[in-house]
Amino acid sequence: MQRRYWRLKGKAKARIPSALFKSEWAREIHIATQAALSAGVNLKACSEKDPTSKCVSHKGEIDLVTETDKENEREIVALLRKHFPSYLVIGEEEASDAGAIPPLTRAPTWIIDPIDGTTNFVHGCPLSCVSIALAVDKAVVVGVIYDPFKDELFLAARGRGSYLNGKPLQTAGGTHELHQAVIIQEFGYERSEAGIRKLLQVSERLLQGNVQALRQFGSGVLDLAYVAAGRVDGVYCGVAGDGWKPWDYAAGSLVATEAGATMSTLQGQEFDVFGSSMVCAANESIARKLVGAARE
Amino acid sequence: MQRRYWRLKGKAKARIPSALFKSEWAREIHIATQAALSAGVNLKACSEKDPTSKCVSHKGEIDLVTETDKENEREIVALLRKHFPSYLVIGEEEASDAGAIPPLTRAPTWIIDPIDGTTNFVHGCPLSCVSIALAVDKAVVVGVIYDPFKDELFLAARGRGSYLNGKPLQTAGGTHELHQAVIIQEFGYERSEAGIRKLLQVSERLLQGNVQALRQFGSGVLDLAYVAAGRVDGVYCGVAGDGWKPWDYAAGSLVATEAGATMSTLQGQEFDVFGSSMVCAANESIARKLVGAARE
Repeated sequence: MQRRYWRLKGKAKARIPSALFKSEWAREIHIATQAALSAGVNLKACSEKDPTSKCVSHKGEIDLVTETDKENEREIVALLRKHFPSYLVIGEEEASDAGAIPPLTRAPTWIIDPIDGTTNFVHGCPLSCVSIALAVDKAVVVGVIYDPFKDELFLAARGRGSYLNGKPLQTAGGTHELHQAVIIQEFGYERSEAGIRKLLQVSERLLQGNVQALRQFGSGVLDLAYVAAGRVDGVYCGVAGDGWKPWDYAAGSLVATEAGATMSTLQGQEFDVFGSSMVCAANESIARKLVGAARE
Repeated sequence: MQRRYWRLKGKAKARIPSALFKSEWAREIHIATQAALSAGVNLKACSEKDPTSKCVSHKGEIDLVTETDKENEREIVALLRKHFPSYLVIGEEEASDAGAIPPLTRAPTWIIDPIDGTTNFVHGCPLSCVSIALAVDKAVVVGVIYDPFKDELFLAARGRGSYLNGKPLQTAGGTHELHQAVIIQEFGYERSEAGIRKLLQVSERLLQGNVQALRQFGSGVLDLAYVAAGRVDGVYCGVAGDGWKPWDYAAGSLVATEAGATMSTLQGQEFDVFGSSMVCAANESIARKLVGAARE
């Protein structure tokens, strides 16, 4: 155990469960948690200021970027680079500056979303979070998600389980029936006629299938964390080809699967963090129903 | 000022702004706040226990009632009756027991939702709240909403403004353009073929109109509070005739309108707490666009 890295104190430190302290990724988990908590504090402080002062630039008309977003990414990257100088970084802002998302290599790579749920954040709506994942040999091995508005820290390490504020998460108790299931659908930024038709067709099939409730929270990372926590039974995206980006999935996919959730593409094939569609459900039964509803 | 009624201490008391302390409804606001905070603490404590132990009875297949819901209503009603023995009470559980919602008279009447966002609550999803309104002469004069998961207390008194944790709320800075607006749509429990078609037709029109984002949070009361707080730009319900109940609207409608929001039916007519449809928006422009999207 490399004591010099344990900089977190009191409550925050107590939220890293011993199973993760003992994992081979303990140091990475620790530093990433430190970065996520610090970025989360920024995020909350900014959100509580005048919301109209936050919005500084636009990525298209409906995808807003904020100064805090950029600042958070810079700070997270600086801390991670200081402790892990050889690791690569994939982040929203970096990819945006470079004009493309770099391909994932076998090298250890941080995949970062400094603010997931940007539209909520820009509107002062307290449903957003910080997301940091570590991929090694092209697989996510660490996931750290921090929601500063509810002070919730989700952590996962490959083979070591998934945790919310130190308590283990398990999806095993979830329903297998659509009429008892709460499903999240995110419409994202798709606004083409054909895209809208496809999006609403899936909603229609779920409603016809007597789904208990549909939700749209607007934070892809929290959607996955909420499946892990058993707060919802499933989430899907990419119906109209307009899927999430790797940083929307990376940490959340590990937090979800380590809690027992099942993930696939919308076609029921193996899930890929760099893919364009995703189904995540508490169990196979719900997953199959979502894949069925999304069938052309 | 009747000192003996000021039982709230410290932080909670500090959240009742002086404008409301001085209002003619100060005593009602105070006791209702006390009841809402106490019920909120119950709600959060129960939610953090094993979620599978909570669900004890069903109102139809997709409307769940919990023991906490009933317990909360009993406790709220007991406290309000103790201090205001002559006031009437309209609540979800009471109406359910009586088989009908009693009509609103001119007498002072508490309108209570001990847990709004019941489906979220039953699933352990932290988007629910306690809602208490007072209607006098058939108009809502006091609104108290407490979200224990984010520790947010929304208060309003007629003609005295709307407040979140003691700070005044104003919707005036909101966008007038759909492409910058976040709109909440709640599908509720409507599952008939015709109902589903109508619900999705409105979503389709909003997406075709390039709405910035659609949300479904699953708590009608918080939806209205979030319009008041400028976190979203509008919300509508009752498209398929399956509108909210008075306790879903009552407190929220005052919190929203006292913050400057505009309310109407889906047909653009005067809003009625006992009506079956509702549009609430930060301003007239957004309201007109929602009424337009809902047109047959």
